[in-house]
Amino acid sequence: MAKDKGITPQSVDFSEWYLEVIQRAELADYGPVRGTTVLRPYGYALWENIQRTLDEMFKATGHQNVYFPLFIPMSFFEREAEHVEGFSPELAVVTHAGGDALEEPLAVRPTSETIIGHMWAKWIRSYRDLPQLLNQWGNVVRWEMRTRPFLRTSEFLWQEGHTAHATQEEAEAETRRMLGVYATLAREYAAIPVWEGMKTESEKFAGAVYTTTIEAMMRDGKALQAGTSHYLGTNFAKAFDIKFQDRDLETKYVHTTSWGLSWRFIGAIIMTHGDDKGLILPPKLAPIQVVIVPIYKEATRARVLEAAQALEQRLKAQGVRVHLDDRDQYTPGYKFNDWELRGVPYRVELGPRDVESGTAVLASRLGGKETLPLEGLAEAVPQRLAAFHEQLFRRALEFREAHTVTADDYETFKASVEGHFVRAFHCGDAQCEKEIQEETKATTRCIPFDAPEETGLCVRCGRPSAYGKRVLFAKAY
Amino acid sequence: MAKDKGITPQSVDFSEWYLEVIQRAELADYGPVRGTTVLRPYGYALWENIQRTLDEMFKATGHQNVYFPLFIPMSFFEREAEHVEGFSPELAVVTHAGGDALEEPLAVRPTSETIIGHMWAKWIRSYRDLPQLLNQWGNVVRWEMRTRPFLRTSEFLWQEGHTAHATQEEAEAETRRMLGVYATLAREYAAIPVWEGMKTESEKFAGAVYTTTIEAMMRDGKALQAGTSHYLGTNFAKAFDIKFQDRDLETKYVHTTSWGLSWRFIGAIIMTHGDDKGLILPPKLAPIQVVIVPIYKEATRARVLEAAQALEQRLKAQGVRVHLDDRDQYTPGYKFNDWELRGVPYRVELGPRDVESGTAVLASRLGGKETLPLEGLAEAVPQRLAAFHEQLFRRALEFREAHTVTADDYETFKASVEGHFVRAFHCGDAQCEKEIQEETKATTRCIPFDAPEETGLCVRCGRPSAYGKRVLFAKAY
Repeated sequence: MAKDKGITPQSVDFSEWYLEVIQRAELADYGPVRGTTVLRPYGYALWENIQRTLDEMFKATGHQNVYFPLFIPMSFFEREAEHVEGFSPELAVVTHAGGDALEEPLAVRPTSETIIGHMWAKWIRSYRDLPQLLNQWGNVVRWEMRTRPFLRTSEFLWQEGHTAHATQEEAEAETRRMLGVYATLAREYAAIPVWEGMKTESEKFAGAVYTTTIEAMMRDGKALQAGTSHYLGTNFAKAFDIKFQDRDLETKYVHTTSWGLSWRFIGAIIMTHGDDKGLILPPKLAPIQVVIVPIYKEATRARVLEAAQALEQRLKAQGVRVHLDDRDQYTPGYKFNDWELRGVPYRVELGPRDVESGTAVLASRLGGKETLPLEGLAEAVPQRLAAFHEQLFRRALEFREAHTVTADDYETFKASVEGHFVRAFHCGDAQCEKEIQEETKATTRCIPFDAPEETGLCVRCGRPSAYGKRVLFAKAY
Repeated sequence: MAKDKGITPQSVDFSEWYLEVIQRAELADYGPVRGTTVLRPYGYALWENIQRTLDEMFKATGHQNVYFPLFIPMSFFEREAEHVEGFSPELAVVTHAGGDALEEPLAVRPTSETIIGHMWAKWIRSYRDLPQLLNQWGNVVRWEMRTRPFLRTSEFLWQEGHTAHATQEEAEAETRRMLGVYATLAREYAAIPVWEGMKTESEKFAGAVYTTTIEAMMRDGKALQAGTSHYLGTNFAKAFDIKFQDRDLETKYVHTTSWGLSWRFIGAIIMTHGDDKGLILPPKLAPIQVVIVPIYKEATRARVLEAAQALEQRLKAQGVRVHLDDRDQYTPGYKFNDWELRGVPYRVELGPRDVESGTAVLASRLGGKETLPLEGLAEAVPQRLAAFHEQLFRRALEFREAHTVTADDYETFKASVEGHFVRAFHCGDAQCEKEIQEETKATTRCIPFDAPEETGLCVRCGRPSAYGKRVLFAKAY
């Protein structure tokens, strides 16, 4: 495919830049059905690395994987009042199967609290059956009006964790523990700084007592909710009659949680780190960490490729995910652009003179080149990758700090919220929150856990502030 | 849950035995929607080991994972005549989404040849874009009338490989290569002997030029098709207009393949190896390879548990998947039965006298106990597990050989086909094949690749045999 045209710069049209990068880097393509996405090999490899990282953390915290059915009887949704209100407008419904009309229409799962609740009611009898610490990798469907690859798609891949506990205390601790896992994924693997905090009532999950979230800043200053963890109290336990006999012989409702992270996280990676050349992938999740581009003419081809292959093997031995681009039909310059577009952290340039002098050029996707001796280059790479991660995280953190402001009056708020996160006092009233959204398009992103305790007057209406601290506002994806 | 009642013996009701084992071993449960299955943690862990094993083999043979959408426009199915005939009676159809009736109803994928074909038509331009070697892990829906956990479920988990090639030769080699991967999974990991062979025209995949299969024998003498690999020729290429410019500058259709293995394979493991005590799991795929059951009274509890934990650590260090059953509410006898039911290959029994004498008892799920010194026990286990695998495979192979017969006349055929595989000549006529099925319930399982070349007269109609060898007949799941 021709890739000779440049990408639309972020500053010209960030949204167009995003769509072009996804297509041109071959992360994904549009499916034939409205709002669906095809995850191509390069995108899937990135998702697999996210999956593997999370899955190990889930297992290390005692969770087990399971699989619940895709189809849920429509009636299940009506059992929890807020849940049905939140999800029924987005349901895809199967009405016919095997050539016949179904007696009861089936919802294609938008999330699995209801069907898991139904099974728990059968499985849980005693405190000995608790806690239930389950996780599911799979697909869900939410019929959205305006879709955008990864961020808002009719069908998406995700994981959904579901746990049941004997006590509120334990369930709340679980809610925070799993948000912590998401924050670790973001910071330590994806190099994305995130705010951890509590959602306001208007922004919480439909059916939750409260929702906690990690919020990241994209390079256009907008927010992206990258993962959420919900304390559901006994709402679903009551709706599905999930009870257990406790040690004290009393029959009690379980306390449940749920938490999910989807391929939206790929969108967060693209928009936190990418630049006008394309993607910049965090080394720990990048499908390819180092690409070797050999530079040769017909006469030097064999010699250069031999040295490139030897280096490839040494890098593999170091546990580095390396790719040797030995395509004959493209020039080195084309390949440089192509791998920059695909966000590979490091490129090795290796030509006949390098081979002769026993050196190679190592170019970072974050800028800068160094000439290194071939001997020992492979061994130097893991340390370079760690440094790349640090540099990427610092860069994102500095960007975020430069684009976060504090506002104590509505004029400042309105002027800042385009392209910035704004810390402001809010009265806690849902109507006031809604009016802010209508007037500025900004929503409350979270009440950060680590924000200092402060009180003041609502930035919009002047009533006394709620929450005991400032709220983080931003326009959001 | 009470597990004091025994399981129905295989000899009394094999089908009932199968359903009880699945429930009692907590592999799976029934979902609320007809024919759907919930895969519980123990069953999912088994599936994950199957997945990991296959995924490594797929990657080692150059395949990349991808994800295509769940929803396929109904019109896609009509493009390939045999495909629509085979699949349209089983489709689940989404007619409403987001509160509105859809303009075109959407099929929930029963398999993905059509949607992948649609995307390939867009992606493939040149011989340089070939081969396409893709694999997808996911769920599919086929609305079946009679369902049975793992074997025939409305929704199932599987992988589907899809590849496109420049030549017929390459595509046919791929078809056989991937069948070989399935055969390796069966023999070397699941300890299941399988026949590899070609399906007859009546039994092939809807839309294929031909289908290859691995067929296993269950302990009731019935056959289970455990994985299939199809050469699709240019059928889908023509239906979806997937063409490329070859090196010779001519425009040609690609040759495609597809191959799939589902959680049906769990059913094959259950019914190939299980006995009246429950499951017997092949060590390489078993979620738990060794269970330690400590035996103690109040006074000896601490001492025994300490020794058990030390052993657990040493087994983990050997890479063994070990579980220490330290539940206080159950007797050792109960635990023995429970882990036998769950098919764990080895059990370590460790009581106070063992601890004193520095020994432990190692009991095999295939029978036999030995007392071993605790010192060095962990190191001895990997070799025991390998021997268990060999023993399990040999046992299944002997069973299969004892239940496979040759028939040269229809009376012998009819008398043998209950509980046996039958090798017989067949004329190759689809109508004759159908009549055999109506008269005996037996179907052609495959024409084995390694069967000796022979010709003779059709076991039913007496016409000259087709295929140049005997066909394998059996009643099948």
